[in-house]
Amino acid sequence: MQQEPTACVILIGNEILSGRTQDKNLSYIGTELAALGITLAEARVIPDVEAVIIETVNHCRAQYDYVFTTGGIGPTHDDITSRCIAAAFGLPFGRNAEAQKILEDHYKHEINESRLTMADTPEGAELIKNPVSAAPGFRIENVYVLPGVPSIMQAMFMGLSSSLKGGTAIASQSFSGFVSEGKLAKGVGKIQDEYPQTDIGSYPFLRDGKLGTTLVVRSRDAEALQKAADALREHMQAFAEIIEE
Amino acid sequence: MQQEPTACVILIGNEILSGRTQDKNLSYIGTELAALGITLAEARVIPDVEAVIIETVNHCRAQYDYVFTTGGIGPTHDDITSRCIAAAFGLPFGRNAEAQKILEDHYKHEINESRLTMADTPEGAELIKNPVSAAPGFRIENVYVLPGVPSIMQAMFMGLSSSLKGGTAIASQSFSGFVSEGKLAKGVGKIQDEYPQTDIGSYPFLRDGKLGTTLVVRSRDAEALQKAADALREHMQAFAEIIEE
Repeated sequence: MQQEPTACVILIGNEILSGRTQDKNLSYIGTELAALGITLAEARVIPDVEAVIIETVNHCRAQYDYVFTTGGIGPTHDDITSRCIAAAFGLPFGRNAEAQKILEDHYKHEINESRLTMADTPEGAELIKNPVSAAPGFRIENVYVLPGVPSIMQAMFMGLSSSLKGGTAIASQSFSGFVSEGKLAKGVGKIQDEYPQTDIGSYPFLRDGKLGTTLVVRSRDAEALQKAADALREHMQAFAEIIEE
Repeated sequence: MQQEPTACVILIGNEILSGRTQDKNLSYIGTELAALGITLAEARVIPDVEAVIIETVNHCRAQYDYVFTTGGIGPTHDDITSRCIAAAFGLPFGRNAEAQKILEDHYKHEINESRLTMADTPEGAELIKNPVSAAPGFRIENVYVLPGVPSIMQAMFMGLSSSLKGGTAIASQSFSGFVSEGKLAKGVGKIQDEYPQTDIGSYPFLRDGKLGTTLVVRSRDAEALQKAADALREHMQAFAEIIEE
């Protein structure tokens, strides 16, 4: 599974680290990438600090096939992502004519200098269309720069995802029941050993005060996936009714 | 604000990167640390891969005052965090007698070898009590190893947090209204310049199809916080009614 394209997500924003904002972008992007056959290998959450953004982007773009950043591309003083991306690539940073036109068409007489800063990009950036609120994101080489508001980010990601080169999509099956992990562990370990082409995870949960476990099997190999899934289903049913499949 | 103690959170688990699980631990720990006056400087989300866990833990424990890991300390084959922590510190890894007793007292005749693996720790680890489901976490030097299930992790974090050395707690105020960021941006930037002891953030939101902005000001300096907050409230009221404060 290591030859598939890899990706990294960088969530940029003090508000995520301070606990004020519950991030929802990572799970969205993770799900979409898995469906495209791209392995999300790592995610980082970093503050709105210039040196940290530059260093993180440069580290990650060298390491992974795709890098997606979210956050910090609005019109306010704390929106510094775009100029940090320019600095990371050593590119001039300035007004993008195409982005300026999009913003002027959208805001009309309500355009102002703060809003126009959203048209500033690294030189040579390819814009990523924003069907919700106009202000575009952009791509430079393998780095995709997206906003932090989940609904807007998702609309933009949907537009760009067809341009990503994926591998074989990862399919998965899962089984949940009210049985503790510790009872299932030995048998699950055996099934994992038997089907090394699959990736089996065991996740405990608490629901209505009762302890349960969800077993998840993921694979790019449809046949191995089905065999391992059948074995896991049977194994769980030996201990508990399956409440979700 | 840079002299305050710093922390890093490492979320360990394929299920977070695949999008299957929506993480809730980062925002919890971030909120608690802010209240203690500890700056959460960074978070990383990494897969259940031995080399990645070891490298990440060693990088982060050298960089920050506190490191908190979540996930991967259950009884199943994919729970490899504890032995990776031992490897990161170059410590022997084996059965911890105190943890074994806790598990035997809890599970009684239902104890088994899979469950007993949850008593394996690096040598010299200090246990972190688990009031919910018995299996303890542990601390080695500045690294705190916690489970992934949010309710259990939170109960354990509450128990250990009084042992953390914090700085001056960070207080915050926030104001939300249906006005776009672009209208507020210039004035907010001026207020930020006037009160450099504060950290002002501007966060757009979409609610009922309407665009709004939340302004947040955070500081360890109570007087500067109040002055900046008053200025931000007045600034927002010039454009829109404040719907949340």
